[in-house]
Amino acid sequence: MSLLVTGSIGIDTVETPFGKRGDVIGGSAVYFSYAASFFTHVRLVGVVGEDCPKSMFDVFQGRDIDAGGLEVRRGSKTFRWHGSYVKDMNEAVSVQTDLNVLAERAPKIPEKFFDSRYVFLANTHPALQQEMLCCLKSPKLIVADTMNLWIQTERKELLKLLKQIHGLVLNDGEARLLTEKKNLIAAAKEVLKMGPKFVVIKKGEHGCMLCGERDVFVLPAFPAEKVIDPTGAGDSFAGGMMGYLATQGNFSGPTIKRALAFGTVLASYTIADFSLAGLQGTGREQIDERWNEFKQAMSF
Amino acid sequence: MSLLVTGSIGIDTVETPFGKRGDVIGGSAVYFSYAASFFTHVRLVGVVGEDCPKSMFDVFQGRDIDAGGLEVRRGSKTFRWHGSYVKDMNEAVSVQTDLNVLAERAPKIPEKFFDSRYVFLANTHPALQQEMLCCLKSPKLIVADTMNLWIQTERKELLKLLKQIHGLVLNDGEARLLTEKKNLIAAAKEVLKMGPKFVVIKKGEHGCMLCGERDVFVLPAFPAEKVIDPTGAGDSFAGGMMGYLATQGNFSGPTIKRALAFGTVLASYTIADFSLAGLQGTGREQIDERWNEFKQAMSF
Repeated sequence: MSLLVTGSIGIDTVETPFGKRGDVIGGSAVYFSYAASFFTHVRLVGVVGEDCPKSMFDVFQGRDIDAGGLEVRRGSKTFRWHGSYVKDMNEAVSVQTDLNVLAERAPKIPEKFFDSRYVFLANTHPALQQEMLCCLKSPKLIVADTMNLWIQTERKELLKLLKQIHGLVLNDGEARLLTEKKNLIAAAKEVLKMGPKFVVIKKGEHGCMLCGERDVFVLPAFPAEKVIDPTGAGDSFAGGMMGYLATQGNFSGPTIKRALAFGTVLASYTIADFSLAGLQGTGREQIDERWNEFKQAMSF
Repeated sequence: MSLLVTGSIGIDTVETPFGKRGDVIGGSAVYFSYAASFFTHVRLVGVVGEDCPKSMFDVFQGRDIDAGGLEVRRGSKTFRWHGSYVKDMNEAVSVQTDLNVLAERAPKIPEKFFDSRYVFLANTHPALQQEMLCCLKSPKLIVADTMNLWIQTERKELLKLLKQIHGLVLNDGEARLLTEKKNLIAAAKEVLKMGPKFVVIKKGEHGCMLCGERDVFVLPAFPAEKVIDPTGAGDSFAGGMMGYLATQGNFSGPTIKRALAFGTVLASYTIADFSLAGLQGTGREQIDERWNEFKQAMSF
């Protein structure tokens, strides 16, 4: 099943206690696509400026990713982010953020992608997220991510979006900000009242929580002794989760649980190296192996 | 199998966003004993002052707890703690702490308890914890708890203790303080170098982590939408864990996992009400039921 993702594509500079990488590929749609492409065919929609070196997309070579929705906009500059985890590996300090082309009009979804059944709206302005949905013919599962900025500045648009999606993925701080509930289960239940059928709260090193109409499911992170660069962990998680779901065709409790575990495994590869290197260093076989190891470890 | 516990017995005053309770029974050994007594016979060693109302121990009536090691010391005052969770349910602010009798000599372990095979040294001065061990004839499993205060002020004695125990239970902040490692797995592995065969790191609302010579096992907390009073959660966790282990006679990986899950369940009852009320409101059947629910929820 085809999985459509729209989100940011950027040039990152990242500092962690383990080193610094300048001008590496990043962005929510990039991590998501790479992670999801271990499972299914991915359709990528995004926009970069003409300054973006073509070689940056070499990472997609040989992957099951259709970059037909990738626009290189003339006269524009690519989104750039410089973040530092030197003080706290759990939360990046943004040293500099240049939205550049992300502050302009959204990229267009090519007509050949209109029939996408699985859709992930990675974090961007909620009005743009809604715009993306308009052209889709018969989406089966729409999941969105969001962030503090939109919760605080575009709440009205965000609430409109929430009525149009099946699932919302956000982190613990964002869930608390959106609902003003401290307890995460209470916060998740509040989100459900806003529209989505399920919500996944990402808790970084503490794993994730799924809350649906009937179930609450909590999963720890895959135990990692060495975290090199947490950038993209949440997007890789979402990519693993959605990629697996797109191969299943049902969203039963057990299926979603297994999907969260795949998301957890994908995130564990991402944080083990800078930029996409962690994901590039693995394969489907290793992913399945780690998933089984995780499943085994979690049973008692 | 008999399970010996030594630790504090106190009179607590606790404030949370859900109310205030004054002069209720508390202390590490009390929560531990009550939780463990759902599984096995418990031998309690502790000391209170002559100000302690006898009625306070009514909670032990009908429980499988031998309070033969409970000393009521004439001329002394009972340990008192006044804590507030009003600002943060994850960490108590100590409004007032009066060590009183806890600052005096330790209570004696009655001779009839010398043959105890399972031992839990709840949090107290590490020199006293070592003293307790001297009189035991053939302990099979010794587990200790500790706290920030001793890590900072009695490190030498604590390191001596660590060489004499099989397992250490401590919270995430304490593990980081003891080892100066931020990553919890790295911290746990560092603790293992100090002596214990296994370490259990309690992470409050984020569950717990076990690290042994070969295994790392992470378990989330039991999902709780309403936390009324977190006091005693860690001691109830330890009580459930040790109580179950005392009935098993082996410390294999799977056994310890199941024990941690029982600890998690016991803690979930404790936090659902003030003081011991949460534990008093449950029974072994309900505990087993919740344990099975948890096991089911964790499998995917």
